[in-house]
Amino acid sequence: MCELLGMSANTPTDLCFSFTGLTQRGGKTGPHSDGWGVAFFEGKGIRTFHDSAASCDSEVASFIQTLPIKSKTAICHIRQANVGNICLANTHPFVRELWGSNWVFAHNGQIENFAGSTQIYEPIGETDSERIFCDLMNQVRHNLPRDTSLTELNQTLTNLAQSYAKQGVFNCLISNGDWLFSFCSTKLASITRRAPFGAAQLKDADVTVDFAGETTPNDVVSIITTEPLTTDEAWHIYQPGEWRLWQLGEVVAEGKVELLAK
Amino acid sequence: MCELLGMSANTPTDLCFSFTGLTQRGGKTGPHSDGWGVAFFEGKGIRTFHDSAASCDSEVASFIQTLPIKSKTAICHIRQANVGNICLANTHPFVRELWGSNWVFAHNGQIENFAGSTQIYEPIGETDSERIFCDLMNQVRHNLPRDTSLTELNQTLTNLAQSYAKQGVFNCLISNGDWLFSFCSTKLASITRRAPFGAAQLKDADVTVDFAGETTPNDVVSIITTEPLTTDEAWHIYQPGEWRLWQLGEVVAEGKVELLAK
Repeated sequence: MCELLGMSANTPTDLCFSFTGLTQRGGKTGPHSDGWGVAFFEGKGIRTFHDSAASCDSEVASFIQTLPIKSKTAICHIRQANVGNICLANTHPFVRELWGSNWVFAHNGQIENFAGSTQIYEPIGETDSERIFCDLMNQVRHNLPRDTSLTELNQTLTNLAQSYAKQGVFNCLISNGDWLFSFCSTKLASITRRAPFGAAQLKDADVTVDFAGETTPNDVVSIITTEPLTTDEAWHIYQPGEWRLWQLGEVVAEGKVELLAK
Repeated sequence: MCELLGMSANTPTDLCFSFTGLTQRGGKTGPHSDGWGVAFFEGKGIRTFHDSAASCDSEVASFIQTLPIKSKTAICHIRQANVGNICLANTHPFVRELWGSNWVFAHNGQIENFAGSTQIYEPIGETDSERIFCDLMNQVRHNLPRDTSLTELNQTLTNLAQSYAKQGVFNCLISNGDWLFSFCSTKLASITRRAPFGAAQLKDADVTVDFAGETTPNDVVSIITTEPLTTDEAWHIYQPGEWRLWQLGEVVAEGKVELLAK
């Protein structure tokens, strides 16, 4: 399986602290050593970094831990391969353009023998995850108008996520930079940090941060991840079938769908 | 305007030497200080790095100069903005997926008020360059079958490049990782390095390399760039209208088209 990390914030914020924690799980405190990737939104543009090396050993990951790239929305993934070789083309997050925006997707789970629509968007690598993403993008493009409302889009994403989660394990993060949609099939957690900010201790590395020294009183920063990254904060644990739509660090819609057996 | 750098090689090769030369022109020995980007193919996957900072000052560019990322095909670009703000979304190279491959594009030049097809592929940023790229991708997708031959594809790319170059300045590099198409509207140069390898001195930095120590006798490595990067090698200077299709470091097709006035 894999681990996911997403960030939604109301002000450009660096991901260094959480990224440092997550990347330890890529071969050191966790077995997810088959590559990693991250996409940082900056306006409509994105910076992406992908590596097929284990994140705990990756020179690029070490460099990014120290680079305060500031973003309101970011999606990161560390991989433990099940379907598809260890190579760059199989490394999340995956990116496609739709309606003049970058859409970024990362998946934790597996849907065996998934065969979706490849009408417009086609997978480049061999993973079930990228096939699901392409299917999702084709469905969104086919079923919604270009000027669709966020409410309609969210409904479509929820329906699609539910249908995938009925076929296998489907925890995901997807964003176009404006919103971030998160869906829990088996495992996902989130935390929202806002004033008064305190300190936090990483679970996977001997690193503590005092957010009070790095923020202003109006900052709202939320982290969504497979398992809580800190030991001394109260994380929200998603229930199976639970989804949350994030914008500027806040939950703007949430709900829970039934996940019937396959 | 901007500067382009492409590489086509028959064995995974690092771009450090040429990249070091080019990035000096991003604010130090040249005026192209409005961002830079690079895409390295690795199999069907790509590593991309984009930055809106001047390449001569960019921490990411400095890091990449020292990182021996090995690739058979790479495209790099340093930007001097004419159309569009300095921001990540306006930074080349641009990437889209077509027929299950990453297509990467960088442009030097300008076509004022270009308005092309946005049927499937739409620009994310504000540059004329990305609008041209989206038009090219839409035309290729619309006019060619998925299993098109490289000969047919090359003919289509040449026709499109000619039509763009008739509307303005259009020097470009485009690749799907398997081939690299280069087109000269006003300025482009190339060099092919093969055994016996010698030494070379960068024009823009006090750096010399002895390729003999970094290669095997079978290596063929070609560099395509806006202006020659070294002072002591014989570069091929493209003529206006000249195009070259590269594969594994070799020119596999070449020709020249008429560029009539607008």
